[in-house]
Amino acid sequence: MLLYDAPRAPNPRRVGIFLAEKGVTVPVRNVDLMALDHMESDFARINPLRAVPALVLDDGSILTESVAICRYIEWLRPEPPLFGRDGREQAFVEMWQRRMEFALFLPVAFAFRHGHPRMGVLEKPQFPEFAEAQRGRAAAAMRFLDGELADRAFVAGEAFTIADITAFVALELTRLARIEVPPELTRLARWRAAVGARPSVAV
Amino acid sequence: MLLYDAPRAPNPRRVGIFLAEKGVTVPVRNVDLMALDHMESDFARINPLRAVPALVLDDGSILTESVAICRYIEWLRPEPPLFGRDGREQAFVEMWQRRMEFALFLPVAFAFRHGHPRMGVLEKPQFPEFAEAQRGRAAAAMRFLDGELADRAFVAGEAFTIADITAFVALELTRLARIEVPPELTRLARWRAAVGARPSVAV
Repeated sequence: MLLYDAPRAPNPRRVGIFLAEKGVTVPVRNVDLMALDHMESDFARINPLRAVPALVLDDGSILTESVAICRYIEWLRPEPPLFGRDGREQAFVEMWQRRMEFALFLPVAFAFRHGHPRMGVLEKPQFPEFAEAQRGRAAAAMRFLDGELADRAFVAGEAFTIADITAFVALELTRLARIEVPPELTRLARWRAAVGARPSVAV
Repeated sequence: MLLYDAPRAPNPRRVGIFLAEKGVTVPVRNVDLMALDHMESDFARINPLRAVPALVLDDGSILTESVAICRYIEWLRPEPPLFGRDGREQAFVEMWQRRMEFALFLPVAFAFRHGHPRMGVLEKPQFPEFAEAQRGRAAAAMRFLDGELADRAFVAGEAFTIADITAFVALELTRLARIEVPPELTRLARWRAAVGARPSVAV
């Protein structure tokens, strides 16, 4: 396998944490997004949608989309399960993964892409007022998550899952997106510190 | 089980098609989104994120997020498989489901929510210029999909999957989002007609 990666970008970061949680190592080729490497004509062979990460399988097939790559790794290496154990649990992990993605990760990512001057290279045109509106949505999602964390250790329950990875990477991006993580959200802070201390995240 | 539904909204529509493909019938309670039923205080018990669909299970647990509900149904009724058969196929179906969701469904939905005057009740504030920019993204995704459909029957391969449901419902929404489906995309049109003729969709 070969993983097309971009070390500091949020989606590749999700896959990097997932691989580390599984103890799986994959050879990596780095793509410089700010130099627009992914817009070069030969990258269309890797991903016509011009995004990283992308995983080249041993038979030459190419798998893109972070969560799809994570599911493939889960299949190769089922333990520890990061998408839930039985079908019922998997449905609830999916719910939390998607809640974190659409209510938190996406608003933070949009605030960053439409609001940060350096992102004008990638996001054309930028809509700074749209970015501003996303900040309130992200804050609402953080308050929601803080309440949910009152009675459990992780986003989807007592086990660490893909939903924690999505939420944690979203919080990492808040700084560049100029979104304050409200300091009164103490359960969110406790969870964030616990996730941040995991060896998979600290790399 | 009890399904909180909103008959003409795109996400509940995805679950409705999925259930019909599986031959599963679930009692339904309709939520009037335009009357803001989902913003009433007692709806927070059903979904604190104020969205439909939501599926109340027999033990009282509540599962939200369309794709999570579909995964739960897939577990209850595995045939026909709409998320892929083995782990490898499931990863590729996930890739196509997410490509359709992020490259096509989301731009169309944003164009609708930020661009349609009636949606001002739900989307505050609206950003019409952002909506306009989404139309070009949706068109690019349709061209991409048309190319992919040159050598296969459905979005993710030779079998109908959740990725077809997401893409089809996105195309249904193009009219309200005032996005033209380019008539020269004949493979897209052929696929759309084939999906539209399925009994699950024609209801």
